Amino acid sequence: MKEVKALNSIIDQVTGQELRQAVEAVCRQAREASCQLAVAEEGRLNQALEILARRIEAATEAIIEQNKLDLALAETAGQSKAFIDRLTLNPARIQAMAQGVREIAALHSRVGKSLEERKLENGVLLQKIAVPLGVIGIIYESRPNVTIDVAALCLKSGNAVVLKGGSESLNSNRFLVGLIKEALAEAGLPTDVVGFVNSPERAATLHLLKQDKYLDVLIPRGGYELVRAVVEHSSIPVLYHAEGGARIYVDPTADLNMARQIVFNSKTNRPSTCNTLDTVVLHRDIAADFLRLALPELRAAGVRVRAEQMAFELVSPALAQELELATEEDWATEYLDLVLAVKIAGSFAEALEFIRHYSKRHTEGIVARDEKLIQTFVNSLDAAALLVNCSTRLHDGGVFGLGAEMGISTGKLHARGPVGIEELATYKWVARGNGQIR
Amino acid sequence: MKEVKALNSIIDQVTGQELRQAVEAVCRQAREASCQLAVAEEGRLNQALEILARRIEAATEAIIEQNKLDLALAETAGQSKAFIDRLTLNPARIQAMAQGVREIAALHSRVGKSLEERKLENGVLLQKIAVPLGVIGIIYESRPNVTIDVAALCLKSGNAVVLKGGSESLNSNRFLVGLIKEALAEAGLPTDVVGFVNSPERAATLHLLKQDKYLDVLIPRGGYELVRAVVEHSSIPVLYHAEGGARIYVDPTADLNMARQIVFNSKTNRPSTCNTLDTVVLHRDIAADFLRLALPELRAAGVRVRAEQMAFELVSPALAQELELATEEDWATEYLDLVLAVKIAGSFAEALEFIRHYSKRHTEGIVARDEKLIQTFVNSLDAAALLVNCSTRLHDGGVFGLGAEMGISTGKLHARGPVGIEELATYKWVARGNGQIR
Repeated sequence: MKEVKALNSIIDQVTGQELRQAVEAVCRQAREASCQLAVAEEGRLNQALEILARRIEAATEAIIEQNKLDLALAETAGQSKAFIDRLTLNPARIQAMAQGVREIAALHSRVGKSLEERKLENGVLLQKIAVPLGVIGIIYESRPNVTIDVAALCLKSGNAVVLKGGSESLNSNRFLVGLIKEALAEAGLPTDVVGFVNSPERAATLHLLKQDKYLDVLIPRGGYELVRAVVEHSSIPVLYHAEGGARIYVDPTADLNMARQIVFNSKTNRPSTCNTLDTVVLHRDIAADFLRLALPELRAAGVRVRAEQMAFELVSPALAQELELATEEDWATEYLDLVLAVKIAGSFAEALEFIRHYSKRHTEGIVARDEKLIQTFVNSLDAAALLVNCSTRLHDGGVFGLGAEMGISTGKLHARGPVGIEELATYKWVARGNGQIR
Repeated sequence: MKEVKALNSIIDQVTGQELRQAVEAVCRQAREASCQLAVAEEGRLNQALEILARRIEAATEAIIEQNKLDLALAETAGQSKAFIDRLTLNPARIQAMAQGVREIAALHSRVGKSLEERKLENGVLLQKIAVPLGVIGIIYESRPNVTIDVAALCLKSGNAVVLKGGSESLNSNRFLVGLIKEALAEAGLPTDVVGFVNSPERAATLHLLKQDKYLDVLIPRGGYELVRAVVEHSSIPVLYHAEGGARIYVDPTADLNMARQIVFNSKTNRPSTCNTLDTVVLHRDIAADFLRLALPELRAAGVRVRAEQMAFELVSPALAQELELATEEDWATEYLDLVLAVKIAGSFAEALEFIRHYSKRHTEGIVARDEKLIQTFVNSLDAAALLVNCSTRLHDGGVFGLGAEMGISTGKLHARGPVGIEELATYKWVARGNGQIR
């Protein structure tokens, strides 16, 4: 692996040693402080969170002042409207952050509980005990509310955290982290358990990716490019979702009115989310009926519908005018927008093959009544969640009853689907004997 | 991340595109075939394993013939005795491989079972179903028996696998993989579910580390350097143990005779394993008594004992002659050999701090009677397994009643401690509704 070692020293030259040491120090301090957090009582953690909620509320004006510094820079830099919107904090959003912290405090933590227990043949009592992951690194875009959300979820689950937010939110984040540290100190917890990479440099992120000595897991939250870069270059295990987007197959045995409602909701409820419908796969036998039923409502809601040539021939000329022609690229696209692709399948097998090929392994859906066919669908597809006769938008930690979530994981190790408080834990084995040897 | 993209193209130049494409093809074929394996019935998988066991037995002579080619090359290359021993297959070892396959076939698989089930408020039935991980990449040293072990464990758990063994075992491995593919074909399973990187090039490993499109997890089995290189450069999630080795604290409340037996067993039972004792941490109050009791037996078994200066002053001159002087380096070393370090601690707190500092987070032990102190030890230390009043050698999938294991994980995501058939699974969420939307 000599080639690669040489490459590492290139990274060092490119990025500067001082910054690397600063990032390393934050991670090391979080690791050292994490031992105290892991044995802290839940009551004390909840107390810190309640203090934090109150401090956020009390500091509303000061938060907005810092946020304005970020907004001014972002506007000067010509950032998009959507970007500016995500960056903006106002009294309502600040109140929502405080409320979110209180909801996280109310969650049930399994830390310290025995998950499994058995007596071995040799008389040893073996227990599998839930414990925090340790230190979690989080890399996210310029959305300052995420700073509070993720720090609160980490603390509640007994984890130390190192935060690296988007550089455009540096002033807001720095101030919010200050509030968190004040709350920790007031609750008698070490302030180092929430670390903050106080640098707008991109190189700081690169350094963070290499702190496997101190960080147990990295969670990148943001666009596909950010996530890919983190996965590609991290030496720390990563929990992430790469791409999202869903497909729904509508079978001839489906209740077509139910299918219409599910497709409409899956597409329009909140189009920018990762559990939103991208392609509806229609069995040829019901394609014309379904489009006649669903198209007017979708178009009225502003959805652009891109169908393959065959669909144009199946519907009336008036409806055909509402369609655009889909290209190969559409089948693979996560739109995150009011666009819907329509694929016609000659058979269930063809539909299944299509979905398997284009699946992002995040969310796939089916509307059908045939139980055997549903079971084949569920067994054959490899995705974090399979939604049968319900909206793909239901794939969510809150809806699933798992509480606040850090995101949806499309990886297969550790967590698949919603990453909530349970997924921020690991376990350790404790074996108690009275002299057993091997 | 422009710097890093540039580095990637350097890797391409260094290693050659053709090899990369060959590695990619093996991984892609395994991925494509994995769908069929994931829905295969357990009976058919067991049938394939039984056929494999029989074929291994029947091919004993042919296996030895191929193995001799590898051995001749290894001897010419001047490999060490230990290396040659690990590389060698003989009739007894081949019989043990076949037996291992039958034992794996007899394990209980959870694939397809519902792990959790609940009715959501909106009436949706939510299930968490155990499914195989998908495709597992395994990188290992030149030990051809591992080829059979890991392939069998992957198949039993419904996973496709891509094998990259040490280049010195290429002839043996190629032949063994041939037997596996014959068994798969005879059982009516796709032969591509066991992929084989048929190249002795180190670059092949580098390419394998980047196949995150096709591989779900990588498991490196081998020395520290190999594991570090994989972790450092893989874009695929990795399950691994970095370093191993254990410490045992002996408290004044301990039954010293029990402590003696546990320390002796933990050190001498099989010194080359990762759950072997490296340092015994003695409370000063019992250090002299313990050494008087334990030292003769350890020395008689050929154990070199390296103690700090204080120990020399605590024991008789005759016993002191049996000690070597420990250096700072000893506390951090995983010996994998008949060497034991002895640390004297002035208090339990000092012992705890020492163990925390030098822990590899793999296995730590305590011998004591004080329940409160034991609980503090168990709560404060961050290791995969904590052994109370029993040998550190018990930290093992077989002993824990978990069946055959792929190794011990010191990571915290997904699996901690033994990686067995349960840890080679993930889950998917299946939500069944009747029209629910959000």
